[in-house]
Amino acid sequence: MDIRHRIRVGVIGGANPEKKWRHVAFEVGTLIAKNNGVLVCGGLGGIMEAAAKGAKQAGGMTLGILPGNLPHDANSFIDIAIATGLGFTRNSLVAMNADTLIAIDGEYGTLSEIAFGIIYGKKVIGIGTWDIKGVQKVSSAEEAVKLALLP
Amino acid sequence: MDIRHRIRVGVIGGANPEKKWRHVAFEVGTLIAKNNGVLVCGGLGGIMEAAAKGAKQAGGMTLGILPGNLPHDANSFIDIAIATGLGFTRNSLVAMNADTLIAIDGEYGTLSEIAFGIIYGKKVIGIGTWDIKGVQKVSSAEEAVKLALLP
Amino acid sequence: MDIRHRIRVGVIGGANPEKKWRHVAFEVGTLIAKNNGVLVCGGLGGIMEAAAKGAKQAGGMTLGILPGNLPHDANSFIDIAIATGLGFTRNSLVAMNADTLIAIDGEYGTLSEIAFGIIYGKKVIGIGTWDIKGVQKVSSAEEAVKLALLP
Amino acid sequence: MDIRHRIRVGVIGGANPEKKWRHVAFEVGTLIAKNNGVLVCGGLGGIMEAAAKGAKQAGGMTLGILPGNLPHDANSFIDIAIATGLGFTRNSLVAMNADTLIAIDGEYGTLSEIAFGIIYGKKVIGIGTWDIKGVQKVSSAEEAVKLALLP
Repeated sequence: MDIRHRIRVGVIGGANPEKKWRHVAFEVGTLIAKNNGVLVCGGLGGIMEAAAKGAKQAGGMTLGILPGNLPHDANSFIDIAIATGLGFTRNSLVAMNADTLIAIDGEYGTLSEIAFGIIYGKKVIGIGTWDIKGVQKVSSAEEAVKLALLP
Repeated sequence: MDIRHRIRVGVIGGANPEKKWRHVAFEVGTLIAKNNGVLVCGGLGGIMEAAAKGAKQAGGMTLGILPGNLPHDANSFIDIAIATGLGFTRNSLVAMNADTLIAIDGEYGTLSEIAFGIIYGKKVIGIGTWDIKGVQKVSSAEEAVKLALLP
Repeated sequence: MDIRHRIRVGVIGGANPEKKWRHVAFEVGTLIAKNNGVLVCGGLGGIMEAAAKGAKQAGGMTLGILPGNLPHDANSFIDIAIATGLGFTRNSLVAMNADTLIAIDGEYGTLSEIAFGIIYGKKVIGIGTWDIKGVQKVSSAEEAVKLALLP
Repeated sequence: MDIRHRIRVGVIGGANPEKKWRHVAFEVGTLIAKNNGVLVCGGLGGIMEAAAKGAKQAGGMTLGILPGNLPHDANSFIDIAIATGLGFTRNSLVAMNADTLIAIDGEYGTLSEIAFGIIYGKKVIGIGTWDIKGVQKVSSAEEAVKLALLP
């Protein structure tokens, strides 16, 4: 199927997660790729890198929307790195460019992305993340991706 | 005192608040002005307008950082309207341009501003708003402004 | 070769060009794709669409960095549409995300992209466009792409 | 007159101008203030600082729209510093927030601001700057400000 028409699943979460959340992110990335989704993330380390690694190793396509102004700053599992030069303000663009979002763990950057996701009318799914009205809580990578891919 | 050195207090909150929150916002704006602070807000309606009205009527200065690209779109109590053309992404700039933030009521836009406020290391005070770790809860306009102005 | 390591050539130019410039843009897009480059553009009509069509029909990959906040607004030859919600301010991001730029015809949006290209240290090549110090003038699509791909 | 209704004149130009252009910028700033205009600029050094100094010493009000994310980075003649965190991309916001623009000398940043000024439908006046169609050339600070303030 055309890249253009594949669903884009954003994976958001912190740069310094515990190992268990990296593992969940890797699984989420893997399942997104296996289900023919495109992974969208912030392009840097932690949850973003673990999810991108999972997606890439499963043969998927990965998009990283970066805070800095050099595409080369993306982690090594990003296919298409987009530099914004916007700093943390780019969090809004991560949410804008996903059809649906999966939040894993995360701190305040993730919270801003959850908020923008809901503002932009996207489905937001959470695993071990902020308990915010409007976020659909799940407890596994499988559940998260299944819910993300439901029409 | 020079405008440049007056503390900037950001007031964030929704565009369609209940009357009681508008009243709180008006009082917060009034107290910011009486204490020689500069009011920073998103420049539009609801909490933003009520706070700006309070500040303006008390002789204060008001700054509105707008989502659109026309300074003229600011509510009529804004002295200095800054157009950004960034849409909701401008929420990051509201937080960036305040020394401290007071959140009143509010929905997801306010949540994104709370998140950016904490990311940028600003003190964030809340009245009737999101219950987020890192937000200092208060129950009156007086308390909010007093806490905002503490060094 | 990995998408990540393919050179990105930005094609910039107006939304309403004369037919002859559309034809040049189409050829430029074709040659970028045949030389394994990734086409970067603003994702909308005119020069952007003609170049993307050329690249796409030659089997290449196309990136569109949009002013609006809906990826779906991209022209139908864009593989990866990035929404920015920045309006004309996104012109800076088009220049930021190309390794080198080819300007074809164009008005003031193109002029802003030429300026940002030079600010960001990119090689800028021009065909029938603004006569600006720092832009390398060429007179054919072949010359433009050849020069763009020189190390 | 209310700050809100005073004309905003943007002064754009390079960070490292020759002394003669600084002098022109200082005069332009002085005349903007004497004619009750608000000076808008990029908030940093060179032409921006010289114009702000002129405006400030003549009792005017000055607005600086900064590339970084700290209002404190503004030059010392800026009353209202607006941090954007957008880097060079903020050039668009300088043009957006002025009613009319005066370009003095300048390099590629100035060229991008001239382009955005014309895109946003603003009158753009030039002294010793880029020779661009649509820029009204003048040869003195007096002429520039007079033309800027014409309805």
